[in-house]
Formats: sequence, C-alpha cells, structure tokens
Amino acid sequence: MKTRLADTPCVDQGLVHRAEDIVRALRDARLSVVTAESCTAGLVSAVLSQADGAGQVLHGSFVAYSKANKTSALGVDSELLKRDGSVTAEVVRQMVHGALFRSPADLALAVSGVLGPSPDEDGNPVGLVYFGCGHRNSPVVVSRKNYGPQPHDVLRHRVVMDGLDLLGHSTGTR
Amino acid sequence: MKTRLADTPCVDQGLVHRAEDIVRALRDARLSVVTAESCTAGLVSAVLSQADGAGQVLHGSFVAYSKANKTSALGVDSELLKRDGSVTAEVVRQMVHGALFRSPADLALAVSGVLGPSPDEDGNPVGLVYFGCGHRNSPVVVSRKNYGPQPHDVLRHRVVMDGLDLLGHSTGTR
Repeated sequence: MKTRLADTPCVDQGLVHRAEDIVRALRDARLSVVTAESCTAGLVSAVLSQADGAGQVLHGSFVAYSKANKTSALGVDSELLKRDGSVTAEVVRQMVHGALFRSPADLALAVSGVLGPSPDEDGNPVGLVYFGCGHRNSPVVVSRKNYGPQPHDVLRHRVVMDGLDLLGHSTGTR
Repeated sequence: MKTRLADTPCVDQGLVHRAEDIVRALRDARLSVVTAESCTAGLVSAVLSQADGAGQVLHGSFVAYSKANKTSALGVDSELLKRDGSVTAEVVRQMVHGALFRSPADLALAVSGVLGPSPDEDGNPVGLVYFGCGHRNSPVVVSRKNYGPQPHDVLRHRVVMDGLDLLGHSTGTR
C-alpha cells in the first residue's frame, strides 16, 4: 500500500475546535452519543472523534448514504423512502430511533439533506437539510434548514457545524 | 444554530483526489461498498462521499468507535473484545462480516487501530492498525501495519489513504 505524508490536517480545524466544546459538554452532562448520517457521510462522527476525550462519549455512527442502507442499517421504512424521498422530518426521526436502537448511546443526531452539486434523485434542492436529535425514550427534535445553493464545501462546513451545535444544545435539554 | 463560513475545505483534498480514483474503479468494477471504521471514525466514508459518482457505489459506514458499539452495531464478539482488545485481525474480520450482513454492499473495508496520542486501553501502541477487506461470500483479506509513533494527523492521513488504496486494490481481486 502506498503512503503519503500529510501537509495539511485531514479535517478542517475550525470544525475540530467546535467538536472540542461539544465533547466537553457531553462529558459534563455524562451523555454518550451516536450519529446517523446521510449527506455528511460520517464527517460529524469523524470530527467528534478528533476532540480530546472523545473516547468517553462517542460510540460511533451509522452512515446511511444510500436509501437501501437507510433501511438495512437503520431500519428506515423503505416505503416511506420510496414515496417521500430521503430528506424529510420522518426520515431523520426514524434515523434517530434506528441509531438509538442499534447502539448503547444516550443521544443521537441524524442528518439528511442535499449537499449538491445537483438536486437529489427526488428533486430536493441543494441546500435543504433536516436534522434530528433525540435522547433515548424522548421525542426527537427535528429542524429543517434551507441553506440555499452555495459552494459545495461551504455548505458541508455549515451543515457539520450546525449538527455539532444541535448536539451541544441537546446536552442541556434532557 | 450558529453558522460560520468555511475558509478551507472540510477534508484534505489529497484524500478526496485519491477517493476519486477509487470511486471510479468501483464504478468500473460495478461494486458497491460499505466501511466499518473504528479509529478513523467515519473519515474514510466521508472522503469517499466527496468523490464524483459516490452515490452510485457508496452505501455508507458503520462507525464503531467504542467497544460496546462494535458489538451492538456490527456484532463483534464482546468476549473477544474483552480478551484481546479491539486491534486484532479477528476483530477487523468480524467488522467486515458485520458490515456486509447489515448492508447491501458487495465489498466492505474495516479499519481498527490506535491513532494516539496515547496507547489504547489494552496497551496497543500508537501506530498499530489492522485493515480488513472482503467481498460478500469471500474470505476477508487482513493486513497489519505498524506506522510507529508520529504526529496524530500525519498518522490519520496515512491510515485513510492506505484504507482507500486497499479498497482500490480489492476492486480487482473478486
């Protein structure tokens, strides 16, 4: 296998700095976390893992990039996905439930949206993202954001940052 | 929720360029993929998702950062983890099998190792990493690498790059 030296950090350090705050808040609240990620594809989990003390709070992630994997890995209703697509409040709600059912975590964050460059196969526009966040045995809090069309990586950065912020907010809402 | 603009890409572009090659190879070989990640925590999946055409080959990832999640999300034997720790050939083999069992993917890549800054709780040294890669109904190919102690982010970069290379290599070994 080839190897190369890194000239730059693997992940944007602004995101990692924000993750440090969130991991500290989760530790203070004695909450463990799992993510369920579609469009971000594991980046929220990867960013959280780079914070000091992540091992005490992060269980991991279920990355469901394809519709088929949303059903097989997280138990999201395949008829719902077929009928309404992947970017809905009910899908992120089911992603949160699926992740909590399949992991020991106290808290789950789900993200499903369209980062572009094109609308998704169901016609959802670039920039539309649903977030879901829920504690075990509590209702899932869903938020919908429409960032509008913007450069791919700017959008990705904002979505990951907002996902982290939502997790941070949820440490105080149990 | 606060938002900030990104000044830099979320993920190192050298990794994304390599992922472009791998996604192209997977498409040419008509193979879909899932990852099972411990120390990389979803970064291999996130990098793959940023390549053009990722939606045609990437199902997602099972990120099992904690031991408990290796068992609950991937079905890794908890007694094995307790006895031998998380960084072994058998653990990555079970991670590959678990990911293929829980997703529709043709091919799975598993990564488990110690990125540091300290040895893991079982005394495995920083820089020790096991990779597993397997097609459905085929034996898992396991490789062990000892990168030695080195800066955190250099090590992470090398591990993700080697994981991508192993996937690329596996497109031709079905």
